[in-house]
Amino acid sequence: MTLDHKSFQLERIVFFSDAVFAIAITLLIIEIKVPHLEHMASDRDFAISVVRLIPNFVGYFFSFLVIGAYWIGHHKIYGTIVDWNYGLVWRNVFFLMAIAFMPFTTAFFSEYPTQLVPIVLYAASFTFAGALEILLFRYAVRKRLTDPLADPSELSHLMWRMSVLPAAGIAAVLIGLFKPVFAGFAFMLIPIAHRVIASRFKKEPTAAIETSELTGQN
Amino acid sequence: MTLDHKSFQLERIVFFSDAVFAIAITLLIIEIKVPHLEHMASDRDFAISVVRLIPNFVGYFFSFLVIGAYWIGHHKIYGTIVDWNYGLVWRNVFFLMAIAFMPFTTAFFSEYPTQLVPIVLYAASFTFAGALEILLFRYAVRKRLTDPLADPSELSHLMWRMSVLPAAGIAAVLIGLFKPVFAGFAFMLIPIAHRVIASRFKKEPTAAIETSELTGQN
Amino acid sequence: MTLDHKSFQLERIVFFSDAVFAIAITLLIIEIKVPHLEHMASDRDFAISVVRLIPNFVGYFFSFLVIGAYWIGHHKIYGTIVDWNYGLVWRNVFFLMAIAFMPFTTAFFSEYPTQLVPIVLYAASFTFAGALEILLFRYAVRKRLTDPLADPSELSHLMWRMSVLPAAGIAAVLIGLFKPVFAGFAFMLIPIAHRVIASRFKKEPTAAIETSELTGQN
Amino acid sequence: MTLDHKSFQLERIVFFSDAVFAIAITLLIIEIKVPHLEHMASDRDFAISVVRLIPNFVGYFFSFLVIGAYWIGHHKIYGTIVDWNYGLVWRNVFFLMAIAFMPFTTAFFSEYPTQLVPIVLYAASFTFAGALEILLFRYAVRKRLTDPLADPSELSHLMWRMSVLPAAGIAAVLIGLFKPVFAGFAFMLIPIAHRVIASRFKKEPTAAIETSELTGQN
Repeated sequence: MTLDHKSFQLERIVFFSDAVFAIAITLLIIEIKVPHLEHMASDRDFAISVVRLIPNFVGYFFSFLVIGAYWIGHHKIYGTIVDWNYGLVWRNVFFLMAIAFMPFTTAFFSEYPTQLVPIVLYAASFTFAGALEILLFRYAVRKRLTDPLADPSELSHLMWRMSVLPAAGIAAVLIGLFKPVFAGFAFMLIPIAHRVIASRFKKEPTAAIETSELTGQN
Repeated sequence: MTLDHKSFQLERIVFFSDAVFAIAITLLIIEIKVPHLEHMASDRDFAISVVRLIPNFVGYFFSFLVIGAYWIGHHKIYGTIVDWNYGLVWRNVFFLMAIAFMPFTTAFFSEYPTQLVPIVLYAASFTFAGALEILLFRYAVRKRLTDPLADPSELSHLMWRMSVLPAAGIAAVLIGLFKPVFAGFAFMLIPIAHRVIASRFKKEPTAAIETSELTGQN
Repeated sequence: MTLDHKSFQLERIVFFSDAVFAIAITLLIIEIKVPHLEHMASDRDFAISVVRLIPNFVGYFFSFLVIGAYWIGHHKIYGTIVDWNYGLVWRNVFFLMAIAFMPFTTAFFSEYPTQLVPIVLYAASFTFAGALEILLFRYAVRKRLTDPLADPSELSHLMWRMSVLPAAGIAAVLIGLFKPVFAGFAFMLIPIAHRVIASRFKKEPTAAIETSELTGQN
Repeated sequence: MTLDHKSFQLERIVFFSDAVFAIAITLLIIEIKVPHLEHMASDRDFAISVVRLIPNFVGYFFSFLVIGAYWIGHHKIYGTIVDWNYGLVWRNVFFLMAIAFMPFTTAFFSEYPTQLVPIVLYAASFTFAGALEILLFRYAVRKRLTDPLADPSELSHLMWRMSVLPAAGIAAVLIGLFKPVFAGFAFMLIPIAHRVIASRFKKEPTAAIETSELTGQN
């Protein structure tokens, strides 16, 4: 019995990463604690207890999208990768370390949504994950682990797109230093930046489909 | 070394989803806390502490079935899908977001099983997940990501079946608004609705096997 | 692009199950809480706090083996299965429900290791999981989902072996009703029972290797 | 429909292991609790609360690397394995038991980073995992489950490399018995030991790439 070992080992890297992503994204919910109410609590008390959790729900929603976006980035990166080495594996481990850290920064930020320190920490962990994802991809390209038939302009487009998320993170930190509650607006620039980048690349690559699909165009 | 990348990337979407489902379904148990008893507690005290957890056990049992049913729905959808794009991936992420939210609504509902707000929230999260699953499937059909050889009547049957779970969720919310404790009865209509839908489709599709199998027919 | 869908969908059932097993087995550890000690605590105080956790460590060790053994049973079952239907999938979901419940019964039992109710509950959940595993396998055999080339005597041997774990669970409950602390001895009969069963089947099947391997024979 | 069952069952062992690794590594974060601050807390109070968590962050970082390193070791072992039996599976389960235990010892050690007992327990669990990994590999080699075409000198190199991590764990325990805070220095010897071992093997195997890759050489 023989296995195509080299290719099976690449699959393992991917499935291990998928499992870490899946756990990090699902752990977001266990940071939202069930509210404690007294025996005599009215429907109104219950409704208020749920309203008070709104920052936590928003944090869950937003971080789920962020981790989801990083997973999609990882999916795109490995969509171009056909070979591997342990340098790639270690960079992958560091990237996953930043991803698995996000349930903590999300919970801290959701608990104190108007405070400077949790917001900066959240945006920093966010930015850090993005930077490590870019380093992972750059390494794969530099060491020629990507498909030799891959269109260089598509790889370049992908690299640019990937920079948008951590760049938004840095913008959020900078805005947050002055007006914490406005930090979130930095993320609204993401689709605009994606559009600008896509327009720079003539032949629109498959990687750009998602935004248009989600916004109902195409 | 080459991989059938396009097909491997579809597998990743599926395995990532499976991992999220598996974690959400298993996290249900960590919301059930071990009862605290004093050193001198008698067997009777222990038995009572277990009896008091019955709503939590029922919540675990029911939500396990619900998430299991949604996983089976997902399994059926991807049983027809042969192609993918990032529009599908994002819709999949949103669906998973609703699934991963259920351990929270289950825990809240199990803690206060006779209260209106937790019941409504639970049934709403339940309904929301079902609606997002249908949107995911509709998108796949519309964008021709499903197997071109798939029987259209089977796809249509599957779509109808999938509507039953969220429809039961809406019914439960409506009943719950008047008599919270009766909300659960809405779910008893699920097998009946499945039977009615199956009878509308002449050639009984494989998707309909499970009910008959479970009820010992066939 | 085409996938061997039928076979890929069987893989999904298996990987989803593996993920649930993996989470249930790993969640065992989060029920062991870090002891809280005062600032001035001595090394001796720390050592005592660790000694007090010994029942929890024993519970972790034992339940890890039990869930591991059920996973191996599942691995053996699906080693014979070549086809599937949604009746199998639902039975698989019910089996996983019993597996995912074990971190709770383990934590309860580890917290009160000398108490009747937690021991009975633990052994009951244990027995229940075993019974559902057997039902799963019987269903697969009855519906001819197993490999038509599989040796019937090997399938029969596997079925007998699988009965040992839940039978030990029942014995533990019965012993526990009289002398809770002796309940654990029931499990020491497992390797003996395995040996007796193996001797009943002339051609020793591969499924019997593990005990001899672990005990250094062969 | 037929599956290459023997090979699919080996994949299951690997993916189950990957899931356990992924969960253990991601659970590290849930042991870091969100700090509780009063309503009137200043930015400085928040910053101090984050600084107080530094031992926890260090523990997260370090244990993530350790579990990551053991996962890579597992990846390397199974990169040479082409056959399996239930003796291998049981050894794999015991190894995973040690891995899944590490979130507890990490949390204990991070909570009391200057205390003898938690440090010794942490280094012991660390060492234990390494020893079980070596036993797993030795068993595979002894039972000829490894690829018959594998270079014996590469297998031997891999075995030596694997001994470095648990050896560092033992050194850390010994140092920790005298000066707890210096125990960490034992781990700085890991890359040096890797270099020394690599130089003993003429034809540098692929397994040695990672260190040079990470340090920017090659």
